[in-house]
Amino acid sequence: MAERPMWEQIGTSFVQLYYQQFDTNREQLGALYVCISLLSDYPVDAINGLLMLPFQKIQHNITSQDHQPAPDNCILSMVVGQLKVDNDPIMGFHQMFVLKNMNDKWVCSNDIFRLALYNFA
Amino acid sequence: MAERPMWEQIGTSFVQLYYQQFDTNREQLGALYVCISLLSDYPVDAINGLLMLPFQKIQHNITSQDHQPAPDNCILSMVVGQLKVDNDPIMGFHQMFVLKNMNDKWVCSNDIFRLALYNFA
Repeated sequence: MAERPMWEQIGTSFVQLYYQQFDTNREQLGALYVCISLLSDYPVDAINGLLMLPFQKIQHNITSQDHQPAPDNCILSMVVGQLKVDNDPIMGFHQMFVLKNMNDKWVCSNDIFRLALYNFA
Repeated sequence: MAERPMWEQIGTSFVQLYYQQFDTNREQLGALYVCISLLSDYPVDAINGLLMLPFQKIQHNITSQDHQPAPDNCILSMVVGQLKVDNDPIMGFHQMFVLKNMNDKWVCSNDIFRLALYNFA
């Protein structure tokens, strides 16, 4: 069986670590980001904002993840899944990351998150 | 009112053009891609595959779009929406693009598409 491409291995590892830390140890998430990172659609525009998200408990369930090599030796990851916040109903979400190698470490330079809310059912 | 950032204007224009052409004039879509493009989750791995997608009629409805500047002067776009294929039920979808300026033209170097299918309801 052919070995999975390197970008897929790196992307998959990042996604696993990201959601694991998000669900269990959110205060460690900052280490995955670099200061040039951009975060969309969170209530605040700083990484520390992740710590201020207004819930006690969150659980992510990943449905699919896709990874591609991107310009400037980056890796592009798109994740589709569902999340459960405290006792709220389950919601779909989509998130994408750009991973960049800096000083021999893969960090997240871009992050876009959206809940799966649609115009019509 | 502050002018929208350049990457947002470019990203929004690309997204509008892309889905407009997809819905009305699919054979022109190839011009938006470069030969290094990567497409995920389509039945074939070539741009021409877009023309072979097995339906007569498709209609996209965009719920949200987010754009960010990304490494290597690229623009990152994430789209969430719904689509209707022929007489099938409406389905949610997520798509992301990396846009890159080549010879003074913005083209799509990466494209990841997924239908919104979840593990549990």
